Amino acid sequence: MDEVKVIEIKKSVFAENEKDADALRQELKSKGVFLLNLMSSPGSGKTTTLIQLINKIKDKVRIAVMEADIDSDVDAVKIKKATGVPSIQLHTGGMCHLDAEMTRQGLDNLNLNEVDLVILENVGNLVCPAEFDTGSCCNVMILSVPEGDDKALKYPLMFSVCDVVLINKIDILPYFDFDMEKCSKNIHERNPQAIIIPISAKTGEGVNVFADWLLHEVQEWKAQTREF
Amino acid sequence: MDEVKVIEIKKSVFAENEKDADALRQELKSKGVFLLNLMSSPGSGKTTTLIQLINKIKDKVRIAVMEADIDSDVDAVKIKKATGVPSIQLHTGGMCHLDAEMTRQGLDNLNLNEVDLVILENVGNLVCPAEFDTGSCCNVMILSVPEGDDKALKYPLMFSVCDVVLINKIDILPYFDFDMEKCSKNIHERNPQAIIIPISAKTGEGVNVFADWLLHEVQEWKAQTREF
Repeated sequence: MDEVKVIEIKKSVFAENEKDADALRQELKSKGVFLLNLMSSPGSGKTTTLIQLINKIKDKVRIAVMEADIDSDVDAVKIKKATGVPSIQLHTGGMCHLDAEMTRQGLDNLNLNEVDLVILENVGNLVCPAEFDTGSCCNVMILSVPEGDDKALKYPLMFSVCDVVLINKIDILPYFDFDMEKCSKNIHERNPQAIIIPISAKTGEGVNVFADWLLHEVQEWKAQTREF
Repeated sequence: MDEVKVIEIKKSVFAENEKDADALRQELKSKGVFLLNLMSSPGSGKTTTLIQLINKIKDKVRIAVMEADIDSDVDAVKIKKATGVPSIQLHTGGMCHLDAEMTRQGLDNLNLNEVDLVILENVGNLVCPAEFDTGSCCNVMILSVPEGDDKALKYPLMFSVCDVVLINKIDILPYFDFDMEKCSKNIHERNPQAIIIPISAKTGEGVNVFADWLLHEVQEWKAQTREF
Protein backbone atom coordinates (compact mmCIF):
# COMPACT_ATOMS: atom_id res chain seq x y z
CA MET A 1 0.00 0.00 0.00
CA ASP A 2 1.30 3.47 -0.82
CA GLU A 3 2.24 5.45 2.21
CA VAL A 4 0.87 8.90 2.87
CA LYS A 5 1.68 11.46 5.49
CA VAL A 6 -0.70 11.32 8.44
CA ILE A 7 -1.06 14.47 10.56
CA GLU A 8 -2.55 14.25 14.05
CA ILE A 9 -4.58 17.45 14.33
CA LYS A 10 -4.61 19.13 17.74
CA LYS A 11 -7.59 20.95 19.13
CA SER A 12 -7.60 24.60 18.19
CA VAL A 13 -6.41 27.10 20.78
CA PHE A 14 -7.94 30.06 18.98
CA ALA A 15 -11.32 31.03 20.30
CA GLU A 16 -12.07 33.45 17.51
CA ASN A 17 -12.39 31.15 14.56
CA GLU A 18 -13.93 33.66 12.15
CA LYS A 19 -11.09 36.12 12.60
CA ASP A 20 -8.59 33.34 12.20
CA ALA A 21 -10.35 32.04 9.08
CA ASP A 22 -10.24 35.51 7.47
CA ALA A 23 -6.55 35.81 8.28
CA LEU A 24 -5.86 32.43 6.70
CA ARG A 25 -7.83 33.40 3.58
CA GLN A 26 -5.78 36.60 3.21
CA GLU A 27 -2.58 34.65 3.66
CA LEU A 28 -3.65 32.16 0.99
CA LYS A 29 -4.55 35.03 -1.34
CA SER A 30 -1.10 36.59 -0.92
CA LYS A 31 0.40 33.24 -1.91
CA GLY A 32 -1.97 32.64 -4.81
CA VAL A 33 -3.31 29.43 -3.29
CA PHE A 34 -7.00 28.59 -3.64
CA LEU A 35 -8.46 26.45 -0.83
CA LEU A 36 -11.60 24.43 -1.58
CA ASN A 37 -13.48 22.96 1.40
CA LEU A 38 -15.47 19.87 0.37
CA MET A 39 -18.18 18.66 2.74
CA SER A 40 -20.84 15.95 2.74
CA SER A 41 -22.39 13.08 4.64
CA PRO A 42 -20.39 9.87 4.98
CA GLY A 43 -20.63 7.78 1.84
CA SER A 44 -21.91 10.43 -0.54
CA GLY A 45 -18.87 10.04 -2.76
CA LYS A 46 -16.40 12.79 -1.81
CA THR A 47 -13.29 10.75 -2.56
CA THR A 48 -14.55 9.28 -5.84
CA THR A 49 -15.66 12.75 -6.98
CA LEU A 50 -12.23 14.16 -6.14
CA ILE A 51 -10.47 11.48 -8.15
CA GLN A 52 -12.61 12.24 -11.22
CA LEU A 53 -12.17 15.99 -10.75
CA ILE A 54 -8.43 15.92 -10.16
CA ASN A 55 -7.73 13.71 -13.17
CA LYS A 56 -9.63 16.22 -15.34
CA ILE A 57 -7.73 19.32 -14.16
CA LYS A 58 -4.34 18.21 -12.85
CA ASP A 59 -2.60 19.22 -16.07
CA LYS A 60 -3.98 22.77 -15.76
CA VAL A 61 -3.42 23.55 -12.07
CA ARG A 62 -1.05 22.24 -9.42
CA ILE A 63 -3.13 20.42 -6.82
CA ALA A 64 -2.63 19.07 -3.30
CA VAL A 65 -5.23 17.25 -1.21
CA MET A 66 -5.82 17.17 2.55
CA GLU A 67 -8.07 14.31 3.64
CA ALA A 68 -9.61 14.82 7.07
CA ASP A 69 -10.81 11.73 8.86
CA ILE A 70 -11.47 10.67 12.41
CA ASP A 71 -9.39 7.59 11.85
CA SER A 72 -7.76 5.61 9.00
CA ASP A 73 -5.82 6.89 6.00
CA VAL A 74 -7.66 4.96 3.30
CA ASP A 75 -8.83 8.11 1.50
CA ALA A 76 -5.44 9.82 1.26
CA VAL A 77 -3.89 6.61 -0.01
CA LYS A 78 -6.68 6.16 -2.57
CA ILE A 79 -6.35 9.74 -3.88
CA LYS A 80 -2.58 9.54 -4.16
CA LYS A 81 -2.76 6.22 -5.98
CA ALA A 82 -5.51 7.24 -8.40
CA THR A 83 -4.32 10.75 -9.28
CA GLY A 84 -0.63 11.01 -8.36
CA VAL A 85 -1.12 14.42 -6.70
CA PRO A 86 0.34 15.07 -3.23
CA SER A 87 -2.15 13.92 -0.61
CA ILE A 88 -1.91 14.04 3.18
CA GLN A 89 -4.22 12.65 5.83
CA LEU A 90 -5.42 14.79 8.74
CA HIS A 91 -6.53 12.84 11.79
CA THR A 92 -8.99 14.84 13.88
CA GLY A 93 -8.78 12.53 16.89
CA GLY A 94 -12.51 12.03 17.12
CA MET A 95 -13.41 15.65 16.39
CA CYS A 96 -16.34 16.15 14.07
CA HIS A 97 -15.14 19.13 12.06
CA LEU A 98 -12.14 21.26 11.11
CA ASP A 99 -11.76 24.92 12.00
CA ALA A 100 -9.31 27.44 10.50
CA GLU A 101 -6.47 26.67 12.93
CA MET A 102 -6.81 22.93 12.35
CA THR A 103 -6.81 23.57 8.58
CA ARG A 104 -3.65 25.64 9.00
CA GLN A 105 -1.95 22.72 10.78
CA GLY A 106 -2.63 20.70 7.65
CA LEU A 107 -1.44 23.44 5.25
CA ASP A 108 1.83 23.72 7.20
CA ASN A 109 2.62 20.24 5.92
CA LEU A 110 2.29 21.20 2.25
CA ASN A 111 4.70 23.16 0.11
CA LEU A 112 2.37 26.03 -0.84
CA ASN A 113 4.91 27.51 -3.26
CA GLU A 114 4.29 24.58 -5.57
CA VAL A 115 0.50 24.49 -5.34
CA ASP A 116 -2.34 26.50 -6.94
CA LEU A 117 -5.29 24.58 -5.51
CA VAL A 118 -5.58 22.80 -2.17
CA ILE A 119 -8.64 20.60 -1.73
CA LEU A 120 -9.69 19.87 1.83
CA GLU A 121 -11.97 16.87 2.18
CA ASN A 122 -13.69 17.66 5.48
CA VAL A 123 -15.03 15.09 7.97
CA GLY A 124 -18.13 13.27 6.66
CA ASN A 125 -20.86 15.11 8.54
CA LEU A 126 -23.70 17.40 7.41
CA VAL A 127 -23.90 19.22 10.73
CA CYS A 128 -20.75 20.40 12.49
CA PRO A 129 -18.41 21.26 9.58
CA ALA A 130 -21.00 23.81 8.42
CA GLU A 131 -20.52 25.79 11.64
CA PHE A 132 -16.78 26.37 11.25
CA ASP A 133 -15.18 28.58 8.61
CA THR A 134 -12.00 26.74 7.60
CA GLY A 135 -10.52 29.76 5.86
CA SER A 136 -11.45 28.28 2.51
CA CYS A 137 -12.05 30.34 -0.65
CA CYS A 138 -15.15 28.33 -1.45
CA ASN A 139 -17.34 25.68 0.13
CA VAL A 140 -18.64 22.81 -1.95
CA MET A 141 -20.92 20.05 -0.71
CA ILE A 142 -22.05 16.75 -2.16
CA LEU A 143 -25.57 15.43 -1.72
CA SER A 144 -26.03 11.96 -3.17
CA VAL A 145 -29.26 10.66 -4.66
CA PRO A 146 -29.78 7.85 -2.09
CA GLU A 147 -29.77 10.44 0.73
CA GLY A 148 -33.03 11.92 -0.53
CA ASP A 149 -34.28 15.19 -1.99
CA ASP A 150 -35.36 16.61 1.39
CA LYS A 151 -31.93 17.09 2.98
CA ALA A 152 -31.85 20.89 2.57
CA LEU A 153 -34.90 21.03 4.86
CA LYS A 154 -33.13 19.06 7.55
CA TYR A 155 -29.60 20.45 7.38
CA PRO A 156 -30.26 24.07 6.38
CA LEU A 157 -26.97 25.55 7.61
CA MET A 158 -24.84 23.21 5.51
CA PHE A 159 -26.77 24.11 2.37
CA SER A 160 -26.67 27.82 3.14
CA VAL A 161 -22.86 28.02 3.56
CA CYS A 162 -22.07 26.24 0.29
CA ASP A 163 -21.30 27.96 -3.01
CA VAL A 164 -21.81 24.77 -4.99
CA VAL A 165 -23.99 21.71 -4.32
CA LEU A 166 -23.01 18.65 -6.35
CA ILE A 167 -25.87 16.15 -6.66
CA ASN A 168 -23.95 12.88 -6.97
CA LYS A 169 -24.88 9.34 -8.06
CA ILE A 170 -27.32 10.47 -10.77
CA ASP A 171 -26.54 7.20 -12.60
CA ILE A 172 -28.78 5.42 -10.07
CA LEU A 173 -31.66 7.93 -10.26
CA PRO A 174 -33.98 5.31 -11.85
CA TYR A 175 -33.81 3.17 -8.70
CA PHE A 176 -34.67 5.94 -6.25
CA ASP A 177 -37.65 8.11 -5.52
CA PHE A 178 -35.60 11.31 -5.89
CA ASP A 179 -37.18 14.43 -7.40
CA MET A 180 -34.43 16.64 -8.83
CA GLU A 181 -36.74 19.64 -9.21
CA LYS A 182 -37.98 19.39 -5.63
CA CYS A 183 -34.41 18.97 -4.43
CA SER A 184 -33.26 22.13 -6.27
CA LYS A 185 -36.24 24.05 -4.92
CA ASN A 186 -35.43 22.98 -1.35
CA ILE A 187 -31.80 24.02 -1.80
CA HIS A 188 -32.61 27.39 -3.38
CA GLU A 189 -35.05 28.19 -0.60
CA ARG A 190 -32.14 27.92 1.83
CA ASN A 191 -29.57 29.43 -0.50
CA PRO A 192 -30.77 31.24 -3.65
CA GLN A 193 -27.17 31.69 -4.90
CA ALA A 194 -26.23 28.01 -4.70
CA ILE A 195 -24.91 26.55 -7.95
CA ILE A 196 -26.39 23.07 -8.33
CA ILE A 197 -24.55 20.59 -10.55
CA PRO A 198 -25.84 17.01 -11.03
CA ILE A 199 -22.95 14.58 -11.45
CA SER A 200 -22.04 10.93 -11.44
CA ALA A 201 -18.62 10.42 -9.91
CA LYS A 202 -18.84 6.83 -11.13
CA THR A 203 -19.40 7.56 -14.83
CA GLY A 204 -17.87 11.06 -14.81
CA GLU A 205 -21.05 12.70 -16.10
CA GLY A 206 -21.30 16.37 -15.12
CA VAL A 207 -17.88 16.47 -13.45
CA ASN A 208 -16.49 18.59 -16.31
CA VAL A 209 -19.10 21.29 -15.53
CA PHE A 210 -17.80 21.51 -11.98
CA ALA A 211 -14.19 21.31 -13.20
CA ASP A 212 -14.73 24.30 -15.54
CA TRP A 213 -16.35 26.33 -12.76
CA LEU A 214 -13.49 25.54 -10.39
CA LEU A 215 -10.73 26.34 -12.89
CA HIS A 216 -12.36 29.72 -13.50
CA GLU A 217 -12.53 30.43 -9.75
CA VAL A 218 -8.88 29.47 -9.24
CA GLN A 219 -7.81 31.77 -12.09
CA GLU A 220 -9.85 34.67 -10.66
CA TRP A 221 -8.28 34.10 -7.25
CA LYS A 222 -4.78 34.11 -8.68
CA ALA A 223 -5.57 37.29 -10.65
CA GLN A 224 -6.43 38.94 -7.33
CA THR A 225 -3.09 37.78 -5.93
CA ARG A 226 -1.26 39.63 -8.67
CA GLU A 227 -3.16 42.81 -7.70
CA PHE A 228 -2.46 42.11 -4.02
CA MET B 1 -50.65 18.20 6.99
CA ASP B 2 -51.00 16.47 10.34
CA GLU B 3 -49.66 18.49 13.22
CA VAL B 4 -47.15 17.12 15.68
CA LYS B 5 -45.73 18.53 18.86
CA VAL B 6 -42.42 20.29 18.33
CA ILE B 7 -40.12 20.63 21.34
CA GLU B 8 -37.28 23.16 21.25
CA ILE B 9 -34.44 21.39 23.06
CA LYS B 10 -32.23 23.56 25.25
CA LYS B 11 -28.53 23.01 25.71
CA SER B 12 -27.78 20.66 28.56
CA VAL B 13 -26.68 22.19 31.87
CA PHE B 14 -25.35 18.91 33.24
CA ALA B 15 -21.65 18.50 32.75
CA GLU B 16 -21.59 14.88 33.81
CA ASN B 17 -23.52 13.27 31.03
CA GLU B 18 -22.63 9.68 31.83
CA LYS B 19 -23.93 9.96 35.38
CA ASP B 20 -27.06 11.59 34.12
CA ALA B 21 -27.55 8.92 31.45
CA ASP B 22 -27.26 6.14 34.03
CA ALA B 23 -29.79 7.90 36.25
CA LEU B 24 -32.20 8.22 33.34
CA ARG B 25 -31.79 4.54 32.47
CA GLN B 26 -32.59 3.53 36.08
CA GLU B 27 -35.63 5.79 36.06
CA LEU B 28 -36.83 4.22 32.81
CA LYS B 29 -36.28 0.75 34.25
CA SER B 30 -38.39 1.58 37.28
CA LYS B 31 -41.16 2.65 34.93
CA GLY B 32 -40.80 -0.33 32.60
CA VAL B 33 -40.03 1.88 29.63
CA PHE B 34 -37.46 0.73 27.06
CA LEU B 35 -35.62 3.52 25.23
CA LEU B 36 -34.08 2.73 21.85
CA ASN B 37 -31.59 5.23 20.42
CA LEU B 38 -31.47 5.03 16.62
CA MET B 39 -28.52 6.65 14.88
CA SER B 40 -27.24 6.93 11.32
CA SER B 41 -26.00 9.23 8.62
CA PRO B 42 -28.51 11.54 6.93
CA GLY B 43 -30.47 9.69 4.30
CA SER B 44 -29.71 6.12 5.36
CA GLY B 45 -33.40 5.41 5.92
CA LYS B 46 -34.04 5.88 9.65
CA THR B 47 -37.61 7.11 9.23
CA THR B 48 -38.62 4.54 6.60
CA THR B 49 -37.14 1.74 8.73
CA LEU B 50 -39.07 2.98 11.76
CA ILE B 51 -42.34 3.00 9.85
CA GLN B 52 -41.80 -0.62 8.74
CA LEU B 53 -40.74 -1.68 12.23
CA ILE B 54 -43.53 0.09 14.10
CA ASN B 55 -46.24 -1.29 11.84
CA LYS B 56 -44.92 -4.80 12.55
CA ILE B 57 -44.91 -4.50 16.35
CA LYS B 58 -47.39 -1.81 17.35
CA ASP B 59 -50.05 -4.38 18.27
CA LYS B 60 -47.62 -6.05 20.67
CA VAL B 61 -46.05 -3.09 22.49
CA ARG B 62 -47.16 0.47 23.14
CA ILE B 63 -44.78 2.75 21.25
CA ALA B 64 -43.94 6.46 21.17
CA VAL B 65 -41.42 8.16 18.90
CA MET B 66 -39.18 11.18 19.43
CA GLU B 67 -37.74 12.57 16.21
CA ALA B 68 -34.67 14.73 16.73
CA ASP B 69 -33.83 17.15 14.00
CA ILE B 70 -31.97 20.38 13.63
CA ASP B 71 -34.91 21.89 11.86
CA SER B 72 -38.23 20.86 10.29
CA ASP B 73 -40.86 18.44 11.58
CA VAL B 74 -41.26 16.35 8.42
CA ASP B 75 -40.17 13.11 10.10
CA ALA B 76 -42.49 13.29 13.11
CA VAL B 77 -45.40 14.10 10.83
CA LYS B 78 -44.49 11.21 8.51
CA ILE B 79 -44.22 8.68 11.37
CA LYS B 80 -47.51 9.76 12.93
CA LYS B 81 -49.29 9.58 9.60
CA ALA B 82 -47.88 6.19 8.55
CA THR B 83 -48.14 4.38 11.88
CA GLY B 84 -50.62 6.22 14.10
CA VAL B 85 -48.31 6.06 17.14
CA PRO B 86 -47.63 9.20 19.21
CA SER B 87 -44.72 11.09 17.68
CA ILE B 88 -43.07 14.31 18.80
CA GLN B 89 -40.37 16.38 17.17
CA LEU B 90 -37.31 17.53 19.11
CA HIS B 91 -35.57 20.57 17.65
CA THR B 92 -31.94 20.69 18.67
CA GLY B 93 -31.40 24.27 17.55
CA GLY B 94 -28.40 23.46 15.41
CA MET B 95 -26.83 21.02 17.87
CA CYS B 96 -25.40 17.89 16.34
CA HIS B 97 -26.38 15.32 18.96
CA LEU B 98 -28.61 14.62 21.96
CA ASP B 99 -27.30 13.92 25.44
CA ALA B 100 -29.21 12.42 28.38
CA GLU B 101 -30.60 15.70 29.67
CA MET B 102 -31.82 16.68 26.20
CA THR B 103 -33.41 13.24 25.84
CA ARG B 104 -35.11 13.74 29.19
CA GLN B 105 -36.58 17.04 27.95
CA GLY B 106 -38.21 15.03 25.18
CA LEU B 107 -39.43 12.24 27.47
CA ASP B 108 -41.07 14.84 29.73
CA ASN B 109 -43.44 15.48 26.86
CA LEU B 110 -44.62 11.87 26.63
CA ASN B 111 -46.99 10.03 28.94
CA LEU B 112 -44.61 7.26 30.01
CA ASN B 113 -47.36 5.39 31.92
CA GLU B 114 -48.90 4.49 28.59
CA VAL B 115 -45.72 3.48 26.75
CA ASP B 116 -43.51 0.35 26.73
CA LEU B 117 -41.06 1.41 24.04
CA VAL B 118 -39.79 4.87 23.19
CA ILE B 119 -37.80 5.17 19.98
CA LEU B 120 -35.47 8.14 19.73
CA GLU B 121 -34.43 8.98 16.19
CA ASN B 122 -31.20 10.86 16.83
CA VAL B 123 -29.74 13.62 14.61
CA GLY B 124 -28.44 12.26 11.28
CA ASN B 125 -24.70 12.17 11.99
CA LEU B 126 -22.18 9.34 12.30
CA VAL B 127 -19.85 11.29 14.55
CA CYS B 128 -21.19 13.30 17.48
CA PRO B 129 -24.22 11.26 18.62
CA ALA B 130 -21.83 8.34 19.26
CA GLU B 131 -20.06 10.39 21.91
CA PHE B 132 -23.09 11.04 24.09
CA ASP B 133 -24.95 8.40 26.10
CA THR B 134 -28.62 9.37 25.82
CA GLY B 135 -29.68 7.11 28.67
CA SER B 136 -31.02 4.59 26.16
CA CYS B 137 -31.35 0.85 26.85
CA CYS B 138 -29.86 0.01 23.48
CA ASN B 139 -28.17 1.74 20.57
CA VAL B 140 -29.04 0.79 17.02
CA MET B 141 -27.48 2.24 13.91
CA ILE B 142 -28.30 2.06 10.24
CA LEU B 143 -25.65 1.85 7.57
CA SER B 144 -27.09 1.93 4.07
CA VAL B 145 -25.58 0.18 1.06
CA PRO B 146 -24.86 3.37 -0.94
CA GLU B 147 -22.70 4.67 1.92
CA GLY B 148 -20.14 1.92 1.32
CA ASP B 149 -18.76 -1.12 3.15
CA ASP B 150 -15.80 0.78 4.65
CA LYS B 151 -17.66 3.04 7.07
CA ALA B 152 -16.69 1.11 10.22
CA LEU B 153 -13.08 2.00 9.44
CA LYS B 154 -13.88 5.67 9.24
CA TYR B 155 -16.40 6.09 12.07
CA PRO B 156 -15.15 3.50 14.59
CA LEU B 157 -16.77 4.98 17.69
CA MET B 158 -20.28 4.88 16.23
CA PHE B 159 -19.91 1.23 15.32
CA SER B 160 -18.43 0.33 18.70
CA VAL B 161 -21.27 1.86 20.77
CA CYS B 162 -24.06 0.12 18.86
CA ASP B 163 -25.70 -3.16 19.88
CA VAL B 164 -27.25 -3.64 16.46
CA VAL B 165 -26.16 -2.50 13.00
CA LEU B 166 -28.91 -2.59 10.38
CA ILE B 167 -27.53 -2.74 6.83
CA ASN B 168 -30.31 -0.99 4.91
CA LYS B 169 -31.21 -0.72 1.20
CA ILE B 170 -30.14 -4.29 0.36
CA ASP B 171 -32.71 -4.19 -2.47
CA ILE B 172 -30.25 -2.03 -4.43
CA LEU B 173 -27.17 -4.16 -3.74
CA PRO B 174 -26.91 -5.17 -7.44
CA TYR B 175 -26.24 -1.54 -8.40
CA PHE B 176 -23.46 -0.93 -5.88
CA ASP B 177 -19.97 -2.20 -5.30
CA PHE B 178 -20.79 -3.22 -1.70
CA ASP B 179 -19.21 -6.34 -0.18
CA MET B 180 -21.43 -7.56 2.68
CA GLU B 181 -18.76 -9.91 4.01
CA LYS B 182 -16.12 -7.18 4.06
CA CYS B 183 -18.59 -4.83 5.70
CA SER B 184 -19.38 -7.35 8.49
CA LYS B 185 -15.69 -8.01 9.01
CA ASN B 186 -14.98 -4.27 9.35
CA ILE B 187 -17.82 -3.90 11.85
CA HIS B 188 -16.84 -6.92 13.94
CA GLU B 189 -13.24 -5.71 14.12
CA ARG B 190 -14.56 -2.59 15.86
CA ASN B 191 -17.28 -4.37 17.82
CA PRO B 192 -17.22 -8.19 17.99
CA GLN B 193 -20.61 -8.26 19.80
CA ALA B 194 -22.48 -6.23 17.18
CA ILE B 195 -25.57 -7.92 15.78
CA ILE B 196 -25.67 -7.24 12.04
CA ILE B 197 -29.03 -7.47 10.28
CA PRO B 198 -29.36 -6.80 6.53
CA ILE B 199 -32.72 -5.17 5.75
CA SER B 200 -34.63 -3.32 3.09
CA ALA B 201 -36.87 -0.71 4.66
CA LYS B 202 -38.41 -0.28 1.22
CA THR B 203 -39.51 -3.90 0.68
CA GLY B 204 -39.62 -4.88 4.37
CA GLU B 205 -37.09 -7.70 3.93
CA GLY B 206 -35.24 -8.50 7.15
CA VAL B 207 -37.20 -6.03 9.27
CA ASN B 208 -39.01 -8.89 11.05
CA VAL B 209 -35.63 -10.21 12.28
CA PHE B 210 -34.93 -6.88 13.92
CA ALA B 211 -38.53 -6.65 15.18
CA ASP B 212 -38.24 -10.06 16.91
CA TRP B 213 -34.94 -9.11 18.51
CA LEU B 214 -36.39 -5.83 19.76
CA LEU B 215 -39.59 -7.37 21.18
CA HIS B 216 -37.45 -9.85 23.09
CA GLU B 217 -35.28 -7.03 24.52
CA VAL B 218 -38.32 -5.00 25.59
CA GLN B 219 -39.80 -8.03 27.36
CA GLU B 220 -36.52 -8.71 29.17
CA TRP B 221 -36.37 -5.09 30.25
CA LYS B 222 -39.90 -5.13 31.60
CA ALA B 223 -39.16 -8.41 33.43
CA GLN B 224 -36.31 -6.60 35.19
CA THR B 225 -38.74 -3.85 36.13
CA ARG B 226 -40.94 -6.32 37.92
CA GLU B 227 -37.91 -7.47 39.91
CA PHE B 228 -36.94 -3.85 40.52
